[in-house]
Amino acid sequence: MNRQIVLRERPAAMVDESTTSLIEVPVPMCGPGQALVKVGMLSIDPTIRTWMNDAPGYLPPIEVGGVIRSSGAGVVVESQSERYRVGDIVYGMTNWQEWVIADETNRFSVVPTGLGVDLAMVMNVLGATGITAYFGLLEVGQFRAGDTVVVSGAAGATGSVVGQLAKARGAGRVVGIAGGPQKCAEVVELYGFDDCLDYREPGLSRRLRAACPGGVDLYFDNVGGEVLDAALAAIAMHGRVVLCGAISQYNVSGHPRGVANTSMLISRRGSMRGFIVLDYLDRSEEAQAVLASMVHDGTLVHREHLVSGLEHAPEALNLLFSGGNHGKTLVVVDESVTLA
Amino acid sequence: MNRQIVLRERPAAMVDESTTSLIEVPVPMCGPGQALVKVGMLSIDPTIRTWMNDAPGYLPPIEVGGVIRSSGAGVVVESQSERYRVGDIVYGMTNWQEWVIADETNRFSVVPTGLGVDLAMVMNVLGATGITAYFGLLEVGQFRAGDTVVVSGAAGATGSVVGQLAKARGAGRVVGIAGGPQKCAEVVELYGFDDCLDYREPGLSRRLRAACPGGVDLYFDNVGGEVLDAALAAIAMHGRVVLCGAISQYNVSGHPRGVANTSMLISRRGSMRGFIVLDYLDRSEEAQAVLASMVHDGTLVHREHLVSGLEHAPEALNLLFSGGNHGKTLVVVDESVTLA
Repeated sequence: MNRQIVLRERPAAMVDESTTSLIEVPVPMCGPGQALVKVGMLSIDPTIRTWMNDAPGYLPPIEVGGVIRSSGAGVVVESQSERYRVGDIVYGMTNWQEWVIADETNRFSVVPTGLGVDLAMVMNVLGATGITAYFGLLEVGQFRAGDTVVVSGAAGATGSVVGQLAKARGAGRVVGIAGGPQKCAEVVELYGFDDCLDYREPGLSRRLRAACPGGVDLYFDNVGGEVLDAALAAIAMHGRVVLCGAISQYNVSGHPRGVANTSMLISRRGSMRGFIVLDYLDRSEEAQAVLASMVHDGTLVHREHLVSGLEHAPEALNLLFSGGNHGKTLVVVDESVTLA
Repeated sequence: MNRQIVLRERPAAMVDESTTSLIEVPVPMCGPGQALVKVGMLSIDPTIRTWMNDAPGYLPPIEVGGVIRSSGAGVVVESQSERYRVGDIVYGMTNWQEWVIADETNRFSVVPTGLGVDLAMVMNVLGATGITAYFGLLEVGQFRAGDTVVVSGAAGATGSVVGQLAKARGAGRVVGIAGGPQKCAEVVELYGFDDCLDYREPGLSRRLRAACPGGVDLYFDNVGGEVLDAALAAIAMHGRVVLCGAISQYNVSGHPRGVANTSMLISRRGSMRGFIVLDYLDRSEEAQAVLASMVHDGTLVHREHLVSGLEHAPEALNLLFSGGNHGKTLVVVDESVTLA
């Protein structure tokens, strides 16, 4: 049988027991042009929460009764497709289930073996997370050496890569924003940021201006809301804001808290630009080559937070919002699926 | 004597009788390298209200007791400068007063005569207003033929030029947003927009989406607040927002209403960029040549709202916020100052 987690009821705030159901359906049949994939690992990303809402987005909402949408990796166990061979490790939209059909419509990519990396790394710094950080900082944010860079969600999977990449490329100063003293210490000690501010303490706006005396040249935003507002208040002349995510807003029901300081973009001639990593996936190899070499020479530290068992995927998702995770959150569905 | 309007007390909301005082001081003496200018006309712009606040901006706040900062035009009546000849009509920061010294520090520009235009036009479509519209639409907004363009403050001095310029350059559709049925009619009938929505009526967000079925490619924002939020909700893929002003927020004391829909910039891969016309003044001639030819061939309609008497400048400023003006608001300080 194929165990699946489906959307039972759209959540108004955090995901809880009434949001999802674990069901069993027959393992799908592999037809011509298709491959049957045994799912090994799921990538748990904040954007999954946005897909649960009945709201316009960059992808259609998950239907009630449908399997929760998610990227993941697995191994090909049966193939009637020329794209996939039995034993291939593949990466794509597995969704929250144990088995998935790969075909021309969902186009999984085959993960190369022999690179000396493990599957968790492929799902983190060499996957969509690292690619997001790379293009978000360098292309969307038009990073320049010497920039004062501020990153929110700095202890998170994407934020930690953004800061390290900025340091490696010659940033003048890299300041993180994270939740709680432990995360802030991690951002400085583990990921090598110059400073990290705890957004849970009062006076973020004032502290941010103090931490960036010349203003913020580039703000990479993963959280939205009040933290985005504080960064706008500290923006430098010609400063750039990269909107990558707005995790602080995803569980807010009703009208989200607005951003009051957009006028700072006028007086400082600033800009703000949103992006979705999907638009850069055809250039993944460029990012992966840089990120892999940084991992190998030790300049890119990464951490994965593994949660075992498909049935724990909803709780794993909530960790992103409670801050209970450390590093990239992954659910291990089948630990026997590994990169050779 | 030189009559001046000075800042008596910083306003918390709209300017009222306690905000300014009319005082008389001696006419300034013209020294070496200087010219004495008799002020003829003042340009009344929303940004003047922002300079009255004790808040960081693109220029320092007006000091309490200081003359209200403002651009304007006048005639040179005495000169010990090689830049200015007696009889020259000059344009620059006259401030709210009857006499001003022009010198190397404030660098007035000499308005060419014999162009067949009057002084009010120089203060409107051929002045900072027209230059703002030109560079805001074409450079900051990266306008492209075929774009669906939405302009707020569409009956206003800047907005009306933006819409007409977009039409002239081949916009697919130009929709204005203005306050009240009379202004909306003016935007369509006088300025030739395809449609105009009254922001005072309910459901702006829904009506805007209906008026722009393919989404908003370029939104030129003069007002901020709720109208900006509605435009963000209707933004097209790769849509651009130009932040020119935020007139709805200038009289708000305390925390302004926030913009809730910034996340639309993520899902639609949109961008938002602020600018100040000061950065484009060295390229004024490029804009003025285009705008003058449009005025002469009748494709650029402009309207000026003249208020007589320096002492009425504060009320003239309030007209911008009450919507009581029609077209560019100018205060006539001395009607004898004209372009030959």
